[in-house]
Amino acid sequence: MTVSGDSNLTNGANSAANGVNAASGAKPSWEELSAKKRSELQASIPKEWRIPENLMPPDSQDDVTGWPEASGWFTEEELAITSLTAEELLSKLATGALKSLDVTQAFCKRAAAAHQLTNCLSEIFFDRAIAMARARDEYFAETGKPMGPLHGLPISLKDNINVQNVDSTVGMAVHVGDPAKADATLAEILAEAGAVFYVKTNVPTAMMIAETVNNVFGRTLNPRNRRTTSGGSSGGESALIVMKGSPVGVGSDIGGSLRIPAACTGIFTLRPSSGRFPVRNCRSGMPGQEAVASVNGPLAPTLEGVKLYSKAVINAQPWLRDPKCVPIPWRDAELPSKLRIGVMWHDGMVQPTAPVARALKHTVSRLKAAGHEIVEWDHADQAEGYLLMQRMFVADGGMTIKSQLEPTGEPLRTEMAPYGVARELSTAEMWKLHLERTDFQNRHLDRWNKAGLDALLLPTIPFNTVKSGTFKHVGYTGVYNVLDYSAVSFPTGLDVDGSIDVRREDYTPLSDECKDIHETYDADLMHGLPISLQLVARRLEEEKVLAMTGRVLEALAA
Amino acid sequence: MTVSGDSNLTNGANSAANGVNAASGAKPSWEELSAKKRSELQASIPKEWRIPENLMPPDSQDDVTGWPEASGWFTEEELAITSLTAEELLSKLATGALKSLDVTQAFCKRAAAAHQLTNCLSEIFFDRAIAMARARDEYFAETGKPMGPLHGLPISLKDNINVQNVDSTVGMAVHVGDPAKADATLAEILAEAGAVFYVKTNVPTAMMIAETVNNVFGRTLNPRNRRTTSGGSSGGESALIVMKGSPVGVGSDIGGSLRIPAACTGIFTLRPSSGRFPVRNCRSGMPGQEAVASVNGPLAPTLEGVKLYSKAVINAQPWLRDPKCVPIPWRDAELPSKLRIGVMWHDGMVQPTAPVARALKHTVSRLKAAGHEIVEWDHADQAEGYLLMQRMFVADGGMTIKSQLEPTGEPLRTEMAPYGVARELSTAEMWKLHLERTDFQNRHLDRWNKAGLDALLLPTIPFNTVKSGTFKHVGYTGVYNVLDYSAVSFPTGLDVDGSIDVRREDYTPLSDECKDIHETYDADLMHGLPISLQLVARRLEEEKVLAMTGRVLEALAA
Repeated sequence: MTVSGDSNLTNGANSAANGVNAASGAKPSWEELSAKKRSELQASIPKEWRIPENLMPPDSQDDVTGWPEASGWFTEEELAITSLTAEELLSKLATGALKSLDVTQAFCKRAAAAHQLTNCLSEIFFDRAIAMARARDEYFAETGKPMGPLHGLPISLKDNINVQNVDSTVGMAVHVGDPAKADATLAEILAEAGAVFYVKTNVPTAMMIAETVNNVFGRTLNPRNRRTTSGGSSGGESALIVMKGSPVGVGSDIGGSLRIPAACTGIFTLRPSSGRFPVRNCRSGMPGQEAVASVNGPLAPTLEGVKLYSKAVINAQPWLRDPKCVPIPWRDAELPSKLRIGVMWHDGMVQPTAPVARALKHTVSRLKAAGHEIVEWDHADQAEGYLLMQRMFVADGGMTIKSQLEPTGEPLRTEMAPYGVARELSTAEMWKLHLERTDFQNRHLDRWNKAGLDALLLPTIPFNTVKSGTFKHVGYTGVYNVLDYSAVSFPTGLDVDGSIDVRREDYTPLSDECKDIHETYDADLMHGLPISLQLVARRLEEEKVLAMTGRVLEALAA
Repeated sequence: MTVSGDSNLTNGANSAANGVNAASGAKPSWEELSAKKRSELQASIPKEWRIPENLMPPDSQDDVTGWPEASGWFTEEELAITSLTAEELLSKLATGALKSLDVTQAFCKRAAAAHQLTNCLSEIFFDRAIAMARARDEYFAETGKPMGPLHGLPISLKDNINVQNVDSTVGMAVHVGDPAKADATLAEILAEAGAVFYVKTNVPTAMMIAETVNNVFGRTLNPRNRRTTSGGSSGGESALIVMKGSPVGVGSDIGGSLRIPAACTGIFTLRPSSGRFPVRNCRSGMPGQEAVASVNGPLAPTLEGVKLYSKAVINAQPWLRDPKCVPIPWRDAELPSKLRIGVMWHDGMVQPTAPVARALKHTVSRLKAAGHEIVEWDHADQAEGYLLMQRMFVADGGMTIKSQLEPTGEPLRTEMAPYGVARELSTAEMWKLHLERTDFQNRHLDRWNKAGLDALLLPTIPFNTVKSGTFKHVGYTGVYNVLDYSAVSFPTGLDVDGSIDVRREDYTPLSDECKDIHETYDADLMHGLPISLQLVARRLEEEKVLAMTGRVLEALAA
């Protein structure tokens, strides 16, 4: 545990001054800083792990997920290791059947490849990874026991999770060259549990765009179709995981930033309620904003991967180290045999596109067949919740974000236009906004109680994914940030079928956004991509929502 | 559970408009509203419970706690009932040995007397109390079982706890004649557990003064010495309880408002961490202020009374009804046989007066004798925490409080001068203040961990109580609101001995405030009054801090 390690959190809003060359007095431009950073990132890939030009797939190749297997550039062992799930890896690492060093090297190489194919990384520190892996192997050799529940497992970290001596750029040039003084509390806990860190992953500017694109590192591509987005803000993570460059990664979520990238790429994630996982000494894009809590959580290709990570972090009693955590130990969920699940077919603002509507209908049908009770859930209050989220995000008139752009002359990206035009609230106005939010939370909880729900099933996003640069509407996720409910985004096992998931004829546009989303829906582009949904439970019901997702998967598999 | 009952919370800051005669267009002045309110309060005391003039003690009588027994105005049964503790009453009510109606009537009468002697009440609704008591007795007669863990027990409520159709004036004229539309969630839970409501108790303006005085109801006096204060802001409660007009009462605490009145009168209280007890549909003096959470909790003459109330509320699973509550069930504390307790002799700002210094020394000595480990706790960061609290309270430039005074022309009391001169922060500035507070919480937790403390022992206030109108310095309590730690204020069993607790010679003034407190210390005035201390535990350790207080009492009794 660190005592002096919180400067990044504390000085978050002021760290602009640290990110530039204070000594010289001249502040480098954002272009200079970004070019330098990209070049350093490129240089941090060992020569032997730079993909030879003749093996590099053409830019026109949409799906690169199969490239590692097809390229012949990986050994059989590397492919075998990186094809294992976190739970499989941990069971082999814990018995000594696999060495952390071998596992780590394989994931380092595959992560390097993933980055060269999708631009998913922001930081690479393979030397540290090798050292951590060796330490774990030595521990095992000496004691015959694993170091902890994550013994030897490489875990990728979103760019905002501080790692000592490594930048947390969060997509803004001002933070280039301002390395963290200490590991984030979460990183300390993961390391003590035996995890190995090797990369940090790309995010959008200030982590406040639903795709992963920023002025420093550029855009992260969806490995399943590089013309589409891997989502945001944890879209470096989702791309890396889908490339099998990481068995489990850490992202964060303030309006959907875990669930959106998980849905765009067809992996699992848990958005925990605030207070379950530590946030101390992580960099925020809007430091000090508390009206909507930012949380972090795991992304993984399997539900079990998400669960084992969650259990490991909670069992480490993070509340003893981070005052924002609550002392709730891991509680194995005891579910009723028959769940009562609300279904929200659309949110009253944007209808889901054909594949999502189909997946939702299919899932409801399978849940009914499995004996669960399905009740209709009215979308009546979604627009109010979504607007509250938007108002809270720009309550400072975008001042905090602008103060991180101005020192380097970095332009505000067009995706973030609302931060450029918002009016800053006074504190008295902010207190009134808090009251509106609390009232919304109260009324929603009353509705939930009245309906007697165990869970709510709904889209994670209105589509499976979209062409890069065209993402719209984070309402399906954002309302649950305002409510601080626990939520899982899970792949349904269904993929888009371009021949049946044609542009919907049965829908009436609910808004201009809705119309635009449906008119630009491209069945050919989406063909073959996974379709995800969202399962929501009450606040601080992480174990329950994970267990209920298991039930949903059982119903879908039946 | 109510769906529509939150208007008082929601519209808190706007309710000014409701409190005045909107129909006529003319807004009555604060003097008119206050006079009307006081006259209604007076009229709400049944004629037979108005103390006859010939029995009324003279204004010059300081100590009125013995008056009910000495006056001859109460029956033996009434005196016997009101002399029982909450735990004794509950055990007799649960077996039918006592009827709720008899208990309720006895406490109604004694509360009426307490009010006439100390001005401790703000609302009297004995008719409702009788009806509630009858319903409980009928329930018992029909089922042979108590309604719940608080079956038949009268519980007094601080003025801000909403009760349907009853005003929540919180000491401001604007709220006169604006009755609550529904019971607070806490009141619902207490009623379902079997409690009976009969009075609400006086508070200072907006509950933001450490004594209980406001422009509507005037000043509440300390029954143990009516020249001294019963503390604030829950000082109506403390006065009522010390008069045995209530076996257990509910107060609230944002900077010490439970602990200060408990200490001033020598009773027990628990300041829980935020999220343990429901706050929904209570009136705040500064609605929407969230940087320092306001919490509510019990006050009682015994530790057991505080504990049984806490357990009853938590066992009702308040998190299912109030989104601000966390799902932590009641956990019986398992204490190590030897506690490690830090002692803070003074906070670096104000030295405790002689009796408090003596009680602290005595308690430490007894704890050591009982085998507990005592370590010195440096006061180094107290001033920083105290200043943070003050800055957060006035972050809106006092706008929210002023907006509740202006409609009726009510003047800002001199005790609240800081709210009149504060500069309102912008939201971006508020976010930076949040960061300072989080950093303070982080550093304090690190210190606590390093010291390996179970608890911290320190004064609750720098004195036992003070002459009315002279209260200074809420630093000993307020820092733990900023930290959101669980804390108990408990009477040590020691009383001020004017012959030994003379003005301290051994101290160096730490500040002008310190100097003033010591120079005005009046050993004769304080003689015989109880001396309390504070025991603090980590955030959300309510069960542990209660159990540890039990250990301290054992050590003191040994």
